[in-house]
Amino acid sequence: MSETISPLAPSKYPKMPAVEGVRIATAEAGIKYKNRTDLLTMVFDPGTTVAGVFTRSKCPSAPVDFCRDNLSGGRARVLVVNSGNANAFTGKKGSESTAATGKAAADAAGCTPGDVFLASTGVIGEPLDAGRFSHLLSGMVKDARPDLWTEAAKAIMTTDTYPKVATATVKLGDGEVTLNGIAKGAGMIAPDMATMLSFIATDAPIDASVLQELLSKGVGPTFNAVTVDSDTSTSDTLLLFATGAAAKRGVAPITQPGDARLAPFKRALNKILKNLALQVVRDGEGARKQVEVTVTGAKSARSAKRIALAIANSPLVKTAVAGEDANWGRVVMAVGKSGEPADRDLLSIWFGDNRLAHNGERDPGYSEEQTSAYMKRDEIVIRADIGIGRGKATVWTCDLTKEYVAINGDYRS
Amino acid sequence: MSETISPLAPSKYPKMPAVEGVRIATAEAGIKYKNRTDLLTMVFDPGTTVAGVFTRSKCPSAPVDFCRDNLSGGRARVLVVNSGNANAFTGKKGSESTAATGKAAADAAGCTPGDVFLASTGVIGEPLDAGRFSHLLSGMVKDARPDLWTEAAKAIMTTDTYPKVATATVKLGDGEVTLNGIAKGAGMIAPDMATMLSFIATDAPIDASVLQELLSKGVGPTFNAVTVDSDTSTSDTLLLFATGAAAKRGVAPITQPGDARLAPFKRALNKILKNLALQVVRDGEGARKQVEVTVTGAKSARSAKRIALAIANSPLVKTAVAGEDANWGRVVMAVGKSGEPADRDLLSIWFGDNRLAHNGERDPGYSEEQTSAYMKRDEIVIRADIGIGRGKATVWTCDLTKEYVAINGDYRS
Repeated sequence: MSETISPLAPSKYPKMPAVEGVRIATAEAGIKYKNRTDLLTMVFDPGTTVAGVFTRSKCPSAPVDFCRDNLSGGRARVLVVNSGNANAFTGKKGSESTAATGKAAADAAGCTPGDVFLASTGVIGEPLDAGRFSHLLSGMVKDARPDLWTEAAKAIMTTDTYPKVATATVKLGDGEVTLNGIAKGAGMIAPDMATMLSFIATDAPIDASVLQELLSKGVGPTFNAVTVDSDTSTSDTLLLFATGAAAKRGVAPITQPGDARLAPFKRALNKILKNLALQVVRDGEGARKQVEVTVTGAKSARSAKRIALAIANSPLVKTAVAGEDANWGRVVMAVGKSGEPADRDLLSIWFGDNRLAHNGERDPGYSEEQTSAYMKRDEIVIRADIGIGRGKATVWTCDLTKEYVAINGDYRS
Repeated sequence: MSETISPLAPSKYPKMPAVEGVRIATAEAGIKYKNRTDLLTMVFDPGTTVAGVFTRSKCPSAPVDFCRDNLSGGRARVLVVNSGNANAFTGKKGSESTAATGKAAADAAGCTPGDVFLASTGVIGEPLDAGRFSHLLSGMVKDARPDLWTEAAKAIMTTDTYPKVATATVKLGDGEVTLNGIAKGAGMIAPDMATMLSFIATDAPIDASVLQELLSKGVGPTFNAVTVDSDTSTSDTLLLFATGAAAKRGVAPITQPGDARLAPFKRALNKILKNLALQVVRDGEGARKQVEVTVTGAKSARSAKRIALAIANSPLVKTAVAGEDANWGRVVMAVGKSGEPADRDLLSIWFGDNRLAHNGERDPGYSEEQTSAYMKRDEIVIRADIGIGRGKATVWTCDLTKEYVAINGDYRS
């Protein structure tokens, strides 16, 4: 946790309701941080289903391996998350630690280790001694309460400057269900301090396979469309739990992804995913501005996303935004370096509503003064039209400031 | 040109000899900069052959298009380079400008426009008025002298903090030939100020097709193995000219790439390419440290190079080096994000001779103190052994400092 809160932090936080079937506890285990919570336990009622998506890293952390193994069961009873140590690149000790934590959590919740989910964030390469916190789990499970969502978001923070929460209540068939989500992450990755974790829970009764389809589709234009520094974590984990408690209130279970009753739920889930993903970007290390990059007219949607990410990850584009400089030449450069089909002489570029380049040349009608005024905003929208097709994509990033270098250039010690 | 010279600048510069058949002139055309030279002309004797490699950008500059067209002829009589304006993303005006410059240079040198080569570096998207300097060309061609190589290197600088020159004299068959090279570039690209240009000339008598083969092979482990910020220029141009003047001294012409007499020449050329490429890295915007990244044990050489570039381009690795922090966890992250085949539990990582990680875990014998002392050096060597094959590659980069952000975050104006 940082002393200085990001200038892009939300001006107010939502009051988080309870999600029926979910109880929460946090604790100060002293794994690395002092005088703050660093351990989170979420307890789910029997019958809770689960879906997950994880980092694509070829060097995933031990908890990622553990969750992937358990996901096939589709059931969850307890989630344990610690901050301060990522349990990544810890070899055999890493899997011994997840096994020990899994057993302790299962004993505490009265379930099998296959119903346990784990996540860790913090320093990489440092063995995580499960004995430091496993004795706390049975007390946490016993004392867990439904109303601690914001506390949960705080316990998983590392270099985050504010807790990230989102909530929605939505109609599902004849009843109403609640969705609550929390997230952390301040660089897309910074192995010794930040990584992207997010946990969402709902009382909706939805089969695990349906839940997984919703989540896998939902992450494409949300969590998989944000980038702080192009660096991918060993530990990125996003889990979605559905307790099914709303069934007791007469909400009929959903067992098919095509079920028409799902539409509002799906929209609400996608909105929460986008909300949390953007909160991560807005808390990007050193970020002063949010940058939305939209590419239109590409050969395909896939090609559009690659071009958009080339723009969003370009250090030269990001430093230009930090300097409030409408340097559209760097956008041309990033389109060119993406390797995707493009025709220089059909390219157009906008910053906000200001068209700076058109048909492969500087736009003759472009006003430097107006664009410079636009660049002073907190939220910058860059659009590039490639002019050769109908492919479209939007991604989000933040600017690259001296503070990013300062935060990440400090000694680990 | 910057007021502050990079701390990694050479402690001394070589005295550049003449290359028989090459004459040089520079001028102050006032294209953008004041009180400095910004125009370079190199005049080559009749019979000079040429080879070239260019940016892979899909949005190349007008001079890149011009050179690509002329390269098929394999002959060169004159090279014109300006700094201050890249003539990139300038549409039809861009090709009109290169045509006009090509014609003026051809008239001045008494050749056809097909024997002219052009390069421009500087601001992007700004039309380049050939009339600003084309009237100077005939005088420059007339006054050109053989001994102005360092002046040539100075005239093409943008954000470079020092001129980049290299020279070698080497045996070719029964005689000796000279190779001289110059380069500029301080970001891999920064369209309104930096781009990578390099020009090499020799008096060796070598056919254009042989020259092209030598150059295309030579750039892989040299110019194509350096990265400052992962951003690829619209304008990168590397040209190699061979005047053949040494034939008059009895050096027999080389017409076959397999000619055994070529071996020492090839080594000398590759050394000059590497020397100039490293000078570009060492003058990377804001650079304080040179970083060499070697990947061994990858599935293939191609895979090794991709992993090495993932490490070298990672903002988190580069900021760690800037902070003199042996943060090997970020190297694990970069290996993981490269998408290339890797096995976390076989991975080993060294900083210099210090092995920090071995077989998927922190090396128990690793000394924090010794490694911290190592990180204070100007030149840092990072090695990652993937442990699954025999693929090997080395790339070079520099650290990412607050000065990089400052240089690139300033207003264009």
